[in-house]
Amino acid sequence: MMRKRPLKVALLGCGVVGSEVARIMTTHAADLAARIGAPVELAGVAVRRPSRVREGIDPALVTTDATALVKRGDIDVVVEVIGGIEPARTLITTAFEHGASVVSANKALLAQDGAALHALAQEQGRDLYYEAAVAGAIPLIRPLRESLAGDKVNRVLGIVNGTTNFILDKMDSTGAGYQEALDEATALGYAEADPTADVEGFDAAAKAAILAGIAFHTRVRLDDVYREGMIEVTAADFASAKAMGCTIKLLAICERAADGGSVTARVHPAMIPLSHPLASVRGAYNAVFVESDAAGQLMFYGPGAGGAPTASAVLGDLVAVCRNKLSGATGPGDSAYTQLPVSPMGEVVTRYHISLDVADKPGVLAQVATVFAEHGVSIDTVRQQGRQDGGGDASLVVVTHRASDASLSGTVEALRNLDTVRGVASIMRVEGE
Amino acid sequence: MMRKRPLKVALLGCGVVGSEVARIMTTHAADLAARIGAPVELAGVAVRRPSRVREGIDPALVTTDATALVKRGDIDVVVEVIGGIEPARTLITTAFEHGASVVSANKALLAQDGAALHALAQEQGRDLYYEAAVAGAIPLIRPLRESLAGDKVNRVLGIVNGTTNFILDKMDSTGAGYQEALDEATALGYAEADPTADVEGFDAAAKAAILAGIAFHTRVRLDDVYREGMIEVTAADFASAKAMGCTIKLLAICERAADGGSVTARVHPAMIPLSHPLASVRGAYNAVFVESDAAGQLMFYGPGAGGAPTASAVLGDLVAVCRNKLSGATGPGDSAYTQLPVSPMGEVVTRYHISLDVADKPGVLAQVATVFAEHGVSIDTVRQQGRQDGGGDASLVVVTHRASDASLSGTVEALRNLDTVRGVASIMRVEGE
Repeated sequence: MMRKRPLKVALLGCGVVGSEVARIMTTHAADLAARIGAPVELAGVAVRRPSRVREGIDPALVTTDATALVKRGDIDVVVEVIGGIEPARTLITTAFEHGASVVSANKALLAQDGAALHALAQEQGRDLYYEAAVAGAIPLIRPLRESLAGDKVNRVLGIVNGTTNFILDKMDSTGAGYQEALDEATALGYAEADPTADVEGFDAAAKAAILAGIAFHTRVRLDDVYREGMIEVTAADFASAKAMGCTIKLLAICERAADGGSVTARVHPAMIPLSHPLASVRGAYNAVFVESDAAGQLMFYGPGAGGAPTASAVLGDLVAVCRNKLSGATGPGDSAYTQLPVSPMGEVVTRYHISLDVADKPGVLAQVATVFAEHGVSIDTVRQQGRQDGGGDASLVVVTHRASDASLSGTVEALRNLDTVRGVASIMRVEGE
Repeated sequence: MMRKRPLKVALLGCGVVGSEVARIMTTHAADLAARIGAPVELAGVAVRRPSRVREGIDPALVTTDATALVKRGDIDVVVEVIGGIEPARTLITTAFEHGASVVSANKALLAQDGAALHALAQEQGRDLYYEAAVAGAIPLIRPLRESLAGDKVNRVLGIVNGTTNFILDKMDSTGAGYQEALDEATALGYAEADPTADVEGFDAAAKAAILAGIAFHTRVRLDDVYREGMIEVTAADFASAKAMGCTIKLLAICERAADGGSVTARVHPAMIPLSHPLASVRGAYNAVFVESDAAGQLMFYGPGAGGAPTASAVLGDLVAVCRNKLSGATGPGDSAYTQLPVSPMGEVVTRYHISLDVADKPGVLAQVATVFAEHGVSIDTVRQQGRQDGGGDASLVVVTHRASDASLSGTVEALRNLDTVRGVASIMRVEGE
């Protein structure tokens, strides 16, 4: 049954992920051939620095001319693991135009230009697969797109960035501050030299955009995702969280509005109860909850990054795309038919944990409570305590019931205008309850 | 782009799962059509008792003649949610022969006759999908078959039966005995009137056979799966587990041998450390760990049974099969090319927790230790304690290092022949370390 002529694969990028893809394509060649129904052959590897020695890769395959490689015309599948917007975007579109399907791990590009790329892929009759773009090895895009294709997903909530989870986990377990934990993450290779994309939430926001689009069959771009990084999370926040039986995680949250007419996508630090399964996701691991009408609550857990795990996801897609090539079909592509609008952050409804520094005198609590009531934000609990510095100030910790982000913002603005409120020490959302 | 002529679906069985499938097909018809690219229409529902009222189902569609329904010739997809071997098997083969692809939730049939059914499906150019057969709503078969198609799976370890997990969880949390916990499970509808298939491990063994076959790309039948139920697990076993920092779960474990040349599949109660994520899987939930070369350790968690969750899995398959029909292709079918043999239980290597009732006199420990050594089973820890009844007996708890099941069996037989050993109170495997 096996076809003799091999399928030809062009690999764009040969860093941590690309070199693992090349390695596994070689060491597992027989298995891949059996699973696909035809051998797959590495037909070219585009790199920036050709002089670097790449173990196990025939030097004759290495080129710096990625454009020529994707234009060859005999390439069946292009594997893009360069990352970033350009030249990745142009290479992918060129690949489609020259007969190749594409497997990509490029979350930034997919979150920004997914719609256009999908449209071109469909127009040209190609596949565009990108399981590796979200949560590394964890099967998430395929389960959302295919396994839950007959269900209605209402919520996706997860830890999708390993670097920040490592840092927050470290702060939680050791009491370290942000900088100290970041330094350790950098030393251990969990954080990049410039950690901005991770700690400011850009990476997680790109993944949230991709997940929301697939989960709700609509279009969600990176710009639609509300984003707060985790660099302002302090050891004091962790102490507050512990007092509430919670920990703090950087969460990506995609939700369908209660009336079903819109969706939201956001990334921010949040308190979650220690009893919630996401609370025990340690180190650089990722985990994602998916809630749907019929299936209920599902969780997917695993390594969210790293060369080998990401390569596993790339190769799973490669096998699928190769099978599609052989059968002359394409897999399930883009699905954005619901055209649900993305609501702004103000319409998100959740709970809040607010720490206020207030004057330690009678009537303050009543004043503060009045402000919450005036803005329609119902208070769940208040904890009031004198400060240790004896400066006549007290701290007031308010946990609210569910309220819109806009109402909460209005409340906080009004609180800041109260004479008796010295400052708003922290505001953190409470999720997972 | 939407095709007007609907795809026709025949539903075989309209119980807890079937009625949910029919309900969702009706309420989510527009979504299903958009995701498939053509409308789907319920063309017939075969039931045993036509007189029962089925809300939302046109009575004109209901028939007791399932055979005539699958022979109609205009059916695109048959959804089989009858369960059991016959008449399900004959109906499925008849469906293939009359032009239909099949979505099934039938673990018993797939575990027994999966090979023959896959062969017929391939010969006839049909799809055979059965995500719902294992772990209800949890996407597991698709991730194993597709997402990990470029990886090498070495181990699948999980809780795949909700009834027994509910019972064991109850025993663990309340100290109840097996019968008491079973009675509660029955009263709450988690256990059937005849719980044999669940508590004796037949249900989990069928799922283990299916998972092992897919994970290792080989043929594993129900008869190949070693099976021990959980009816002999006692409150004393839970006390022993607690003393070790463990709990007890009924696990399905599929492993590739260290040399890669064979596989094993087994279902039995086992102690696992409280720190292991499977230890905190509560109630009737399911969770499955998958370990592979490149991806590392993945976990999938969710509701393992129930009408709506199982229907979610069935409908995900239905969408995929309908898409395949429209594109004229079939999905990834059976993959058993490795032809790895299934080794007997004696070759399984794991750790053991053994409780012995022994005479309370000097030299007994030395005797017992000698027996272990003679059979090549290395002891990790021994705990010796006088019994509370003061009868001159003591209890000896031995935890071993990794050893083959055959060596352990030989050890236990020899221990039983020692004059100083009054009895072997319990033997339990220790997993997840």
